This record gives sequence, C-alpha cells and structure tokens, in this order.
Amino acid sequence: MYSNGDIFVGEIIGTAILILFGAGVCAAVTLNHSKAKASGWVVIAFGWGFGVLAGAYTAGPLSGGHLNPAVTLGIAIDTEEWGKVWIYLLGQMVGAMLGAVLAYLVYYAQFNANVARSVKDKVTSAHEPTPTLGIFSTIPEIRNPVANLVTEVIATVALVLPILAFGLTKGLGESGTQTLIVAFLVVGIGLSLGGPTGYAINPARDLGPRIVHTFLPIPNKGTSDWSYAWIPVAGPLIGGALAGLIYNVAF
Amino acid sequence: MYSNGDIFVGEIIGTAILILFGAGVCAAVTLNHSKAKASGWVVIAFGWGFGVLAGAYTAGPLSGGHLNPAVTLGIAIDTEEWGKVWIYLLGQMVGAMLGAVLAYLVYYAQFNANVARSVKDKVTSAHEPTPTLGIFSTIPEIRNPVANLVTEVIATVALVLPILAFGLTKGLGESGTQTLIVAFLVVGIGLSLGGPTGYAINPARDLGPRIVHTFLPIPNKGTSDWSYAWIPVAGPLIGGALAGLIYNVAF
Amino acid sequence: MYSNGDIFVGEIIGTAILILFGAGVCAAVTLNHSKAKASGWVVIAFGWGFGVLAGAYTAGPLSGGHLNPAVTLGIAIDTEEWGKVWIYLLGQMVGAMLGAVLAYLVYYAQFNANVARSVKDKVTSAHEPTPTLGIFSTIPEIRNPVANLVTEVIATVALVLPILAFGLTKGLGESGTQTLIVAFLVVGIGLSLGGPTGYAINPARDLGPRIVHTFLPIPNKGTSDWSYAWIPVAGPLIGGALAGLIYNVAF
Amino acid sequence: MYSNGDIFVGEIIGTAILILFGAGVCAAVTLNHSKAKASGWVVIAFGWGFGVLAGAYTAGPLSGGHLNPAVTLGIAIDTEEWGKVWIYLLGQMVGAMLGAVLAYLVYYAQFNANVARSVKDKVTSAHEPTPTLGIFSTIPEIRNPVANLVTEVIATVALVLPILAFGLTKGLGESGTQTLIVAFLVVGIGLSLGGPTGYAINPARDLGPRIVHTFLPIPNKGTSDWSYAWIPVAGPLIGGALAGLIYNVAF
Repeated sequence: MYSNGDIFVGEIIGTAILILFGAGVCAAVTLNHSKAKASGWVVIAFGWGFGVLAGAYTAGPLSGGHLNPAVTLGIAIDTEEWGKVWIYLLGQMVGAMLGAVLAYLVYYAQFNANVARSVKDKVTSAHEPTPTLGIFSTIPEIRNPVANLVTEVIATVALVLPILAFGLTKGLGESGTQTLIVAFLVVGIGLSLGGPTGYAINPARDLGPRIVHTFLPIPNKGTSDWSYAWIPVAGPLIGGALAGLIYNVAF
Repeated sequence: MYSNGDIFVGEIIGTAILILFGAGVCAAVTLNHSKAKASGWVVIAFGWGFGVLAGAYTAGPLSGGHLNPAVTLGIAIDTEEWGKVWIYLLGQMVGAMLGAVLAYLVYYAQFNANVARSVKDKVTSAHEPTPTLGIFSTIPEIRNPVANLVTEVIATVALVLPILAFGLTKGLGESGTQTLIVAFLVVGIGLSLGGPTGYAINPARDLGPRIVHTFLPIPNKGTSDWSYAWIPVAGPLIGGALAGLIYNVAF
Repeated sequence: MYSNGDIFVGEIIGTAILILFGAGVCAAVTLNHSKAKASGWVVIAFGWGFGVLAGAYTAGPLSGGHLNPAVTLGIAIDTEEWGKVWIYLLGQMVGAMLGAVLAYLVYYAQFNANVARSVKDKVTSAHEPTPTLGIFSTIPEIRNPVANLVTEVIATVALVLPILAFGLTKGLGESGTQTLIVAFLVVGIGLSLGGPTGYAINPARDLGPRIVHTFLPIPNKGTSDWSYAWIPVAGPLIGGALAGLIYNVAF
Repeated sequence: MYSNGDIFVGEIIGTAILILFGAGVCAAVTLNHSKAKASGWVVIAFGWGFGVLAGAYTAGPLSGGHLNPAVTLGIAIDTEEWGKVWIYLLGQMVGAMLGAVLAYLVYYAQFNANVARSVKDKVTSAHEPTPTLGIFSTIPEIRNPVANLVTEVIATVALVLPILAFGLTKGLGESGTQTLIVAFLVVGIGLSLGGPTGYAINPARDLGPRIVHTFLPIPNKGTSDWSYAWIPVAGPLIGGALAGLIYNVAF
C-alpha cells in the first residue's frame, strides 16, 4: 500500500516529531530557565500525547504513522504482512534519534545553564551532576525488573489493542479523528499507567534517545543507565505481540 | 445486532481497559513512588475519561461499548430489548474485576513500597494502615446516604441522557467522534459532579473493584467498606433508569 | 425546522445540564469536603466547557442546542427568524434555574458542612458567612461597570461570532464535531477572557442561578448581589447582537 | 479560490481572535485581580491553542484561516501561488494589532490595578514598574540569539510541516476536525517547545502586539524590548520556509 521509500521517510519524520515533543516536554518541565518548569504531570502527559498527534498526523499520508515498533509488531501479527516491518523499525529508530537531537537543540541554552545552576544549588556536594537522562529515556521510580516489565507490557497492550480493534478497520493514520483519539489514548496511558516507569510503551522512543544521550556533549549529563535499557525495549515488544494475539483470538 | 459471544468478550475487554485506566490513575495520584503523585483532580478526571475512550474505542466493534450497567439499563428501557442485558452485565462485572487486577499489577511495586513508607511517616501511630480502597472504589467525603444517593443519581442521569439523546440515533460506540464526546462528557462529570462521592456513575466500576480489593493480598490495605457499597450500585441504576424514562417522555 | 414543543423541552434540558455542570464545578472547587477543592482555574474552565458539550449534545436533536440567549439573538439577527426566539429564551431561563437547583442537590451535604467548617475557621469573626454566590453567578474581581460590561461584550462576541461563521453553515448542534469545537471554544474563553468577571457570556447562565440563589435555603449564603446582575445580562446580549451584525457585514 | 476581500477580512478577524485569546490568557495568568492568576503553564498552552481553534474556525470559510505568515509562506512554497500572499500578511498584521487592543480592553481594569498593587508589593524599589510585555510578545528565558532563533525555527517547522502534510490534502480550515487537530498541535508545541522562548512560531503574533504595546497608554508598562523583536519574526519565517522545502522533498 505504502512504498518502501514513503514508509522510511514517513516514519523518520513522524517519529522525530514525536520525540521532539516528548523529550521537549520533559526538558520543559525539568530544566531550569524553562517557562514550564515544574508544571506537573498533566503537562508531561499531554505533551507526549500531542507529540503522537503531531507525528502521526504528519506521517499518516506516507506510512500510516506507526512511529512505534510495538504498533508495527501488533499490526504485522494481525495482517501477517512482515515484509516491510524492517523498514518501519529502521525509520522509527533513525527518527527517534533525530528527534532527541532536535529537542536538545531547542533546549540548548537550558541544558547548559541548568548545569551551572545545579552546581550552586547543591550545597552538600557542589560537583554532583544534575541527571538529564529522564529527559531522553524512562527511569523507573522503584527498580524492580519483573514489576517494571509487567508495567510496560500491560501499558503497551492498552495502547496497541485499541489501535488494532478500531484503527485497523477504519484506516489508521489517515483519518483525523482516529489520530485525535490515539493522541488522547496516549495522554490517558500517561496519566493512568505512567506512574511506575514513565511509560516507554515504545522501544524506539526509549532506545533511540538513550543512544543519543550517551553521545551528546551535555556537561555533567549523568548516567545513561544502560542496565535498565532492555526493559523499555522488551516490555513494549511483548505487549505489542500480546495485543496482536488477543486481537486475533477475541475479534 | 451483536452476537452474544461478541458482546460478552467486548464488554469484558472494554470494561477491563476502563478500570485499568481508572484505578490506574487513582493509584498514580495516591501512591508514593509514583511520578504522578499528588498531581491533582484534573489528572483524575482526565484519566477516567480517557479510560472510557480507550475501553469504548476497543469494545465498539464487538458490543457497542456500553461498559456500564447504567448505560445498558437506559438503552434497554428505550429500545425495549431486554434479551441481551444479562450478557452485558455479566461481561461488565467480569471486566471490572479483571481491570482492577491489572491496575494492581501495574502498580505492584508501589502498593508494596507505599505501605512501608507510610509506616515510617506515621509518627503518631506507626502501625496505622494507609487506606487503599479509594484506588479501587468510591468513598464519599461526607457520609450521608440520602445525599450521596442523590448525587450519584443526578450524575448518572447527566451521563446516560446525553448518550441516549445523541448517541442512539448516530451509532453509539462505532463512531470515533461519538466515542470522543462521551469521553469528554465523563471528564466533565468528574470535574463538576465528582466532588461529593467520587462519581461511581457505574455499578460495575465500583462493585467489581471492591470485590477485588476484598480479596487482593495488599499489605495493610484497610477496609473495603461494604456498608457503603450499595449506594454506588443503586444510585447509578436509578439514574440510568431515570434517564431512560426522561428520554422516552421528552424525545 | 424544530417544533415549538421540542425547542422548549430541548432548551430546558440542555441548559439545565449546562448549569448543573457549571455551577457544579464551581461548587467542586469552592466548597470544603469536595474532592476537587482548590483544584484551580483549569478545572473551572474545562468543567464549564464540558457542560456546554453535555448540554448541547443532549439538546441538539430537539432544538439545535443554543442554551444561551446571546446565541439565540445572534442567530435571529442573521436568519431574520424571530418567531421562536421567545420559546428559546423561556426554555433557557427555566433550564438555568432547574440546573442551579440540581447542582445544589448534588452538593447538598457540602453546602451545609461548608458553613459549619467556615464558622470554626473564621477565628477573627466566627459568624461571618462564607459567600456562596460565586458558585451560582458571576462576580467581578474589580467592580467597574464600564470595564466589566466591555469584558462581557468582547468575550461574548468571541463566542457567538465563531458559532455563526462556521456553525450556521454546517448544522449547529447536530454534528458531534461542531459540538466538540464549541465546547473547547468555551474552555478557551474561560481560560483567556474569564479573569476579570468570571465570563457570564450568557444572560440565562447568570440570571437564572442568581434567582435560585436568592430563594434557596442555604445557611449563611451571603448576598445575591443584585446591583451587579444587569451587567452579565446586558453585556452578553450586546455581544450576541454585535456578533450578528459583524457576521452580516463581514461574511 | 478565496476572493481578495474575503481573505483580508477573514485574516483580520481570525488573527484578532487568536491574539485576543492568546494575549488574554497571558494577562489572565500574569495580572493581579484576575481569577486565573498564577494558574500555570497548562493554562497558557491551552489558552493559545484554543485561540487558534476560535480564530481558524471563524476565518475558515473566508480565507482558510492561516492566521500566521509562517503558515502562509509554507503553503505558498508548496502551491507556488504567491499572488495573494501579501493580502494574507496584511490581514494578519492588522488582525494581530486589533486583537492585542481587544485583550487590553478585556483586562483594562486589571492593567491599571496591577500597577498600583505592584508598587505596594515592591518593598525594595517602590517605583519599579511591573513589566507587561510578556502579555503581548515573547521574551526568552535565556537571551542567546542563536539558540533562541534555533528554538523558534524548529518549533515552527513542527507547526507548519504537519499542517502541510495533512491539512493541504484534506481542506485546511474548512473541516472542523482539521481545525481541532491544529489547535491541539499548537497546545502541544506550547507544552513541549515553549519553555525557552515562549513560542512565537508566528511573526504577526509577536510583532503586531509589540507595536501595540509600544503605543498603548499602560501605566509603567516597561520596555517593549525591540532589540529581541527580529528573532520571533525571522525564526518563524525561516521555519515556515524550511517546512515548505521539507514537504516538497519528502512528500
């Protein structure tokens, strides 16, 4: 249906926009000298949701706007069309890395100034770096691999199953109304299911920016926490596959 | 129109998603070690509303996505088709219990850690349990059976009457736009009418998770408050029936 | 197009739902023992907007869902059909009063308990009543009749002109999407233009609940402030007429 | 497609409504004696987004509702129709100035009272004026011309590229759903990308109100900061052109 070139370009642009908004809103709420500093969880959840809106709305005509390997996997299980999956995944990873770089550029002055401020604020340890990983990738509140994995699996089923149940039959990513609903669905997942792990629910969303965080020259950026990195990749992939299987059985 | 099997599966899945989001957002705002801790009433109301969006969007093609005995009752009064009501109700109760278990699994680490934290925080009484019922079921701010019942009746009329007036004629649960409107309608009921009792407006939403709360092995979970349990069942059923009668007279 | 009976019933039900949500959200944020106590301006604005959604969605098939004399006036100026205006206005006033009573019933326990609490809280003057008018009708932050009137006129033009420009040609109140847009339009007016006077932008919305407030047996309810009452009636009517004239000239 | 007169009138009215809402919400959150005082970034972002909704919804039938020279530029690059660009730009500038005056009138009493209050509050310097420019135009949190320009360029691409990708093929400004999506897109840009500079993303939105601020007789209004004024003009124009070029290459 979509050409290979359109899929690749569409997923790069769409996922880049998604991560630009998502990493952007985390920077907006986290960094000093940001007008949205400390504006709360509702801002985070709506920022990510409208990132999906912007990215899927843009990529829709080119690739259907998956923007997420878990969505691509769930759809492939149901349609049994696996030939183009690798193009989707490649585009999503390139796009996620590009988006993280763009968010870094938007908040370039804040990334620099934030470090300087934090040095002054930390009276007990003047040289302790302010962690910046949370702007790029997810960090669990309580580190418990099994519980964290279960959280990501269930949250991803809650994303992919509605998309499969309704979206597939009505033209995913090509209808404005469907795009709007998926955006608010993602807002809802953030509000309701994001508390424990920060809701990756998308392997590219977490892995791509984590790679970028590892290499970006942010002063005192803190750890990139690669020991946790497999959970926000494995959990969403398991969840996407599970949603595909539930859909096949139930619908 | 829908087959019995589709209705049963659709209502289970849809109501489970609804309660997963709804109990999830209450856990997100209530429990320690949650990124959404204390993020306020606006998060609660949007979380529940987008739970309706996610659940009805998923169940729409299978069952029309009632997810609520009060909605099923109001529709039955108007369509005078009572034969499948029991399948809807059964699916809704099973789904509500399933959703409560899923929300518990998503916040598993938090449920455990929250209790440990609360023991340290309670200096006046180190062994007083932190109540967790409010994550699963509704608790009135002021315990006054007549006033609480009236609140639930009016709030449920405000849910079911709009659905009957507009949704029935335009295809409830099968149109994305209708689903979106009902979701924002539920957000509005939460914001405006949820203050006194926490807006059950759905017997399955309150009773199913209360049963689960009674049996779940949450440490120091507190009372399941069965003395109040009849109000969030009776109130919404009266409200759903009243909405059906108003619709029959007025429209 | 609509029958007289349908218009009357539709406007009563729709306006009652609007005021139930609107007065409800003001009670939710204002009164003690409410779960939404002090949850902020964003809750107020979305509560009123989704009240428009609920009311217009319900009344749409019966009357088109004006719910506001300023909207009815603007439409009458453009369509030059004045014969049914009085039915709309009568239904809106009856509905607004009914909705105020319903909101009072929803928050019945809070209205009583709030007064008792406030007596204890007021150490400097134990008998000073807690004002409740702000739950029912608008109160300006700075009392300046000309400035208040100008605020209401401009805010009402910002409501009625978009409705005329887009809604009239596309079927006001009968399309879910239009209803959704008008709801968010009202949220926007609240957020942006509600600061000085509390945005009546609807004579029935202010006058009806003020009459109810005058007669309801709320203990220590405070003044009903009839000296200000003409501004939220005159301002919106001038604004609605002005919007009609601008539409006639510009479109 | 649209006549020159309709374009001019439509862009004036639509952009005036946009700025009325946008400057209005900044006044609502900033000024003393406003009911929305200090209600946070989420209110700012939704206020501006619903200003786009109101303005584009109104202007849609007349001009397509661009309301933004960066949007007009991006569309002109893609359609290669340049003949009416100057009418759009002229209407947008006149509308932006008109909207700023309207917002000033809505908050007239607050603008006066705010100054008086601020004099009393400033104990260290009783005569220091409270700056009001932030209500009318954008101010960067960290003054860094290159970084500020990059922020505005990227944020504007994130606005114009989605509009081009989806909107052009589906009828920009004439479909309610598209208008709603663009509104939430603007909310998202505010939440995610507004932190560093306050997201002008529209040359008319910043320049028009800045001119008005320069001439309005607001007591102690503070600087109009003309040294920064070129960035929120140049950045969005570069971003709009860049979005047009990306669209031409990628789609």
